[in-house]
Amino acid sequence: MAVAEVMNDSAHKARFDNLNSRVKDVWNDIFNTSKMVSAIRDGVVDPRLYALYMIETYHYTSHNARNQALVGVQAKGIHPNYMKFCFHHAYEETGHENLALADVKSLGLDIEPSSLPKPLPATEVLIAYLYWVASNGNPLQRLGYSFWAESSYEYINPLVDKIRSSLNLDDSQLSFFIAHSEIDSKHAEEVARIMVRHARTDEDWRDIEQVMVTSLKLTGHVLDDVFETYEAVVSGTCADYPFLDRLAS
Amino acid sequence: MAVAEVMNDSAHKARFDNLNSRVKDVWNDIFNTSKMVSAIRDGVVDPRLYALYMIETYHYTSHNARNQALVGVQAKGIHPNYMKFCFHHAYEETGHENLALADVKSLGLDIEPSSLPKPLPATEVLIAYLYWVASNGNPLQRLGYSFWAESSYEYINPLVDKIRSSLNLDDSQLSFFIAHSEIDSKHAEEVARIMVRHARTDEDWRDIEQVMVTSLKLTGHVLDDVFETYEAVVSGTCADYPFLDRLAS
Amino acid sequence: MAVAEVMNDSAHKARFDNLNSRVKDVWNDIFNTSKMVSAIRDGVVDPRLYALYMIETYHYTSHNARNQALVGVQAKGIHPNYMKFCFHHAYEETGHENLALADVKSLGLDIEPSSLPKPLPATEVLIAYLYWVASNGNPLQRLGYSFWAESSYEYINPLVDKIRSSLNLDDSQLSFFIAHSEIDSKHAEEVARIMVRHARTDEDWRDIEQVMVTSLKLTGHVLDDVFETYEAVVSGTCADYPFLDRLAS
Amino acid sequence: MAVAEVMNDSAHKARFDNLNSRVKDVWNDIFNTSKMVSAIRDGVVDPRLYALYMIETYHYTSHNARNQALVGVQAKGIHPNYMKFCFHHAYEETGHENLALADVKSLGLDIEPSSLPKPLPATEVLIAYLYWVASNGNPLQRLGYSFWAESSYEYINPLVDKIRSSLNLDDSQLSFFIAHSEIDSKHAEEVARIMVRHARTDEDWRDIEQVMVTSLKLTGHVLDDVFETYEAVVSGTCADYPFLDRLAS
Repeated sequence: MAVAEVMNDSAHKARFDNLNSRVKDVWNDIFNTSKMVSAIRDGVVDPRLYALYMIETYHYTSHNARNQALVGVQAKGIHPNYMKFCFHHAYEETGHENLALADVKSLGLDIEPSSLPKPLPATEVLIAYLYWVASNGNPLQRLGYSFWAESSYEYINPLVDKIRSSLNLDDSQLSFFIAHSEIDSKHAEEVARIMVRHARTDEDWRDIEQVMVTSLKLTGHVLDDVFETYEAVVSGTCADYPFLDRLAS
Repeated sequence: MAVAEVMNDSAHKARFDNLNSRVKDVWNDIFNTSKMVSAIRDGVVDPRLYALYMIETYHYTSHNARNQALVGVQAKGIHPNYMKFCFHHAYEETGHENLALADVKSLGLDIEPSSLPKPLPATEVLIAYLYWVASNGNPLQRLGYSFWAESSYEYINPLVDKIRSSLNLDDSQLSFFIAHSEIDSKHAEEVARIMVRHARTDEDWRDIEQVMVTSLKLTGHVLDDVFETYEAVVSGTCADYPFLDRLAS
Repeated sequence: MAVAEVMNDSAHKARFDNLNSRVKDVWNDIFNTSKMVSAIRDGVVDPRLYALYMIETYHYTSHNARNQALVGVQAKGIHPNYMKFCFHHAYEETGHENLALADVKSLGLDIEPSSLPKPLPATEVLIAYLYWVASNGNPLQRLGYSFWAESSYEYINPLVDKIRSSLNLDDSQLSFFIAHSEIDSKHAEEVARIMVRHARTDEDWRDIEQVMVTSLKLTGHVLDDVFETYEAVVSGTCADYPFLDRLAS
Repeated sequence: MAVAEVMNDSAHKARFDNLNSRVKDVWNDIFNTSKMVSAIRDGVVDPRLYALYMIETYHYTSHNARNQALVGVQAKGIHPNYMKFCFHHAYEETGHENLALADVKSLGLDIEPSSLPKPLPATEVLIAYLYWVASNGNPLQRLGYSFWAESSYEYINPLVDKIRSSLNLDDSQLSFFIAHSEIDSKHAEEVARIMVRHARTDEDWRDIEQVMVTSLKLTGHVLDDVFETYEAVVSGTCADYPFLDRLAS
């Protein structure tokens, strides 16, 4: 795998080993405590749970290209190559939220962006944080988000497979995850290369690590918020998603 | 109390009762789960724990006037009276972070803003969220933060009293809390009046409530992050606060 | 006059003399070249010309409180007293655009903000420039705009008097200019005091001077754009202001 | 030429004819009134004049990729294809200011970005305006700037040729203009295609036209400011560019 080569060949191998180890720790925390992960692993997946998760995915993904480009817009005195990375990466991420929405609709839901409720609080917090780190502090720090996000599929794929089989989905209904898996290794490699090239100080690597850990934890909170909302939908105490009723068994 | 009068006299009594009840629930959650609250309640307060808390208070307070004013800067088409409230409130909050810093220094620490480490991750998340809600979505929603913050002293004062007696502090060393208590009832009343006057729809009240709950929960996470950092400082695994050593007993 | 005292008593007398002299030069340039100024001075004022001018005044004034507050929101490391000035000044300027609009309506026009065309290009440029200087570069530089704006009445009053008599307006129809004249001397004095207190280097004074000169010149361009639009309205080649027809003699 | 084909084949031929005609008019105004254009056309070019012009080109070009990307970051609800255009265009424009700087240095000047004075006031106004139109109003309007900028070489090339021969420059010393000429036809065509695809209403086309005309006029003001500064440098009343002395004949 190309990304592994970049990490291992580089003088920064210890840096990458540390980042990878911390990512693994946070994922393990999430997997060990998340009721949503347990629910997916342990039984039949309720399509409403999956739909709720993909709706939040739609929401935060619709900001990813924007907050990625914002790094290049705002940061003073960054190297043109890093600036080009920001804009090109933004270009490649643009519109991916529509894949997430199409996948939700493929479950048989007749929804449009305008019919969706606002993001859940945890999703708003994640979005807010990504804009903040994109426009304040170390311009390199948002790479910490890309670092785990671009290589999250080794953690997420088993869950996606469980969802796929449980809900009988075909590839065209998993366009978001499949599209991302495809550009995954390419992007992960680019992110690693950019870090090798532009992260020079201990502080650079610490700032990247802090955003990496924090943004992954906040993503874990999104899962929690999704599951709590799912339970409220099922129990009838949350009426914000009437369109999910047709998925109830 | 004036603020109670505004809440009870108004046609919005049920709205305020709901908000106050939800604030109480979140505070109870924080009080029941926070190791930091337990540590303060149950024993002798370590001045390093208090200092760490006040340093984070310094950090997020230094953004409060700014993100308050930002509501007036960014929001399109808001009523001039609400805009005036935003700017006047920002004016009154300006510089309060320096009270927090002076209180830390009064413990015998020779520190300046430039000698402080960056905010802890949970504090960055709180700051990021407040800028986000100030510049996106319902312009009224940041009132949810003011709503609980301006009336937090009934929840916090017992803890402050414990710290005061445990650390033998006099009033001049608690300038942040005392200054805030003084402007507390005045601001809380203004916030309630502005809500009575400008929040008109169910959505307005829901958006205010969501920001109220979320920002209070994020403040709870700051307490958790402070306590975790405190434990790391005590155990010697965190070297970011060398200036605290002189407070170690 | 209080403002003169601040300027003359201070160690910065030569600085203020220079600023005042440059303001005078730019005003003289405007007065010597502006067709609009000539039209007002030399004859009967067409109410449509006055209305067009006040509509642009409405447009840029609606941004003044916002870009004033933005200085306090954006600037890093500014002194709390200057930050308080920014927010308090913004508070006092809030809603003044509505005076301008009321004055236009008092001519017999039944208009609302939503019925106004967009700002003219020169007005957009002025607005754009003020946001830019409020959020980039020397945080003190926007004082250059306040410096001439708060003391512009000695230059503008003769024109206002001409308009008043020509159009037979009473004080209630000149609320924008009268309100501003009243807070004029107070604000001008505050602006001078803030400059005495916070402008320390040659560069500070030069940055203030540059924004002063540039923003006044851009205001001169607004007058030119207003007059050109007026000529187009009269000749029938501009159809963007149909509501002015009832003012045609 | 591909761009001409797009313009002529499209249902919007009349729209493009109008834009091209207005661009021509503004360029003619600039050519007829600009002392700088006359100075270049009529005689031997002073390398200091050319250097001053290229320094301002450096300044505003350093913002072009940023304000281009900002359209995609800020605009709500724009079509993903237009958003992709914004980010890709920003990607391609990144770093071009360094070509301008290299060309200045090739004259024999030992300068770095940090040794340059701030942009001239007219350049600041242009920069300010481009950020403003990128983040406010019709998201399509910044295309008006690209429209004339990407096809400006038919107007500018005769001047560049005069400079080239007068200063005996070879191609490597004209990297900014040559690089831009090369991507010119490609970008101009893309801009025209995007307009055909996304500009739908009269208002869209009017907003694009207004930004086109205003940004070109503001660029004309930059030329005026450059020439005025050149005269001040020559006469010794401007001391901000000491490094130009070695170019004095």
